[in-house]
Amino acid sequence: MTRYALVVEYDGRPFMGWQRQDHGPSVQASLEDAVHRMTGETVAVHAAGRTDAGVHATAMRAHLDLDRHIDPFRLAEGLNALVRPDPIAVIGCVAVPDDWHARFSCVGRRYRYRIVNRRAPLTFDRGLAWRVPDPLDAAAMHEAAQRLVGRHDFTTFRSAHCQADSPLRTLDRLDVTRHGDEVVVIAAARSFLHHQVRSMVGCLALVGRGRWSADDLAGALAARDRAALGHNAPPDGLYFTEAVYPTSTSAAAG
Amino acid sequence: MTRYALVVEYDGRPFMGWQRQDHGPSVQASLEDAVHRMTGETVAVHAAGRTDAGVHATAMRAHLDLDRHIDPFRLAEGLNALVRPDPIAVIGCVAVPDDWHARFSCVGRRYRYRIVNRRAPLTFDRGLAWRVPDPLDAAAMHEAAQRLVGRHDFTTFRSAHCQADSPLRTLDRLDVTRHGDEVVVIAAARSFLHHQVRSMVGCLALVGRGRWSADDLAGALAARDRAALGHNAPPDGLYFTEAVYPTSTSAAAG
Repeated sequence: MTRYALVVEYDGRPFMGWQRQDHGPSVQASLEDAVHRMTGETVAVHAAGRTDAGVHATAMRAHLDLDRHIDPFRLAEGLNALVRPDPIAVIGCVAVPDDWHARFSCVGRRYRYRIVNRRAPLTFDRGLAWRVPDPLDAAAMHEAAQRLVGRHDFTTFRSAHCQADSPLRTLDRLDVTRHGDEVVVIAAARSFLHHQVRSMVGCLALVGRGRWSADDLAGALAARDRAALGHNAPPDGLYFTEAVYPTSTSAAAG
Repeated sequence: MTRYALVVEYDGRPFMGWQRQDHGPSVQASLEDAVHRMTGETVAVHAAGRTDAGVHATAMRAHLDLDRHIDPFRLAEGLNALVRPDPIAVIGCVAVPDDWHARFSCVGRRYRYRIVNRRAPLTFDRGLAWRVPDPLDAAAMHEAAQRLVGRHDFTTFRSAHCQADSPLRTLDRLDVTRHGDEVVVIAAARSFLHHQVRSMVGCLALVGRGRWSADDLAGALAARDRAALGHNAPPDGLYFTEAVYPTSTSAAAG
């Protein structure tokens, strides 16, 4: 058996999410079906994060096991040919030790959230960013965001469907910067609750529009109550951008 | 009568090009139909450049005349609502003097061409960039590109359908830079021949792959013969990004 680590980029628009679903297309099913057609083997492809419907990834990490050894470059090329026309690209592929696990070995996850802050509707970025027509004060958003950094009970920012045992998470970084008419939020943590990034971004947008103060945001966190959530941002702007592993060598892209 | 100058962004993928066509959708027809539905007036919308099928614009300049005066902000908002679901956005709209003409007043045009230089297929950028799998030497491309800058007979880089009276053009700038796995070509001139940017980019890619030298490129230019063209790059990567007017005030975005 050989274990392969993949770096996968995907446009989440046509998918029900990463995870295989009965009722619609998923990134996982597309990859697993491609592996089966290429090798005849029925495998599970495990990811560092199970993104929701409409959420994207620029560098999802995943792994799979094959009985027959295949050159990693050939595996990536074959999968890229077979997932067509799904908007999935294997941009890295290496053989890794058998105990390397895309999800359980992962010690850090990073997301980027793209807001396009303008009146006009989106063209190229439709489904790839959240358009907010009201002017956003990105500096105020960044300042308020620092109230969420650290170890907290994030119940307010957690979906009702979240399956995590505990609502406690340590948010390492939540940065908001403006680049022209784009406001970008970077979130980093060991792991996130379900909908946590979108819920934080939705509330930060309320701060950016002047509807909430930084104290309102801190109050929502302290409430530890989903009903205190101001707004949940749409999946369109969310990208899984990085997974961190203890030994960088074993997770390196091919 | 009031003349309005527009700044228009569009994703060229679903269109036969800027210009109204009998056999398929166009940016011009979508905008003219929206104006008609909004005002009841039948107008022509004139653009600084008539982009081809599949070519995009981040800031096309255009103008139209209306008998009834409408607030420019309301005109932009109305057009944006009515062009839906076409991927067109009016991102600027101002009233301009009656002698301001989007095409004939324009003294400079700028295009950007995006090449994604990687093995893996495109996901987010499908139809929005040209994927070149072989490694490209962007520095060699830039150096060779300088052989095309200046006033030349660009017959080699001109489509058979070009309607310009003369093949002489003055290329002010042709810059090639690499940003990660993206190679970007910026082209600036008073005006371009039909397919000129795509033809220049196609040949520069041959230089980047080591198949052509800078002398080969200069030789192709000197041949003044379409048969000397190495390669015509696809429309996917081409963006109209800027039109320059003598008095910047009258063309300012709203």
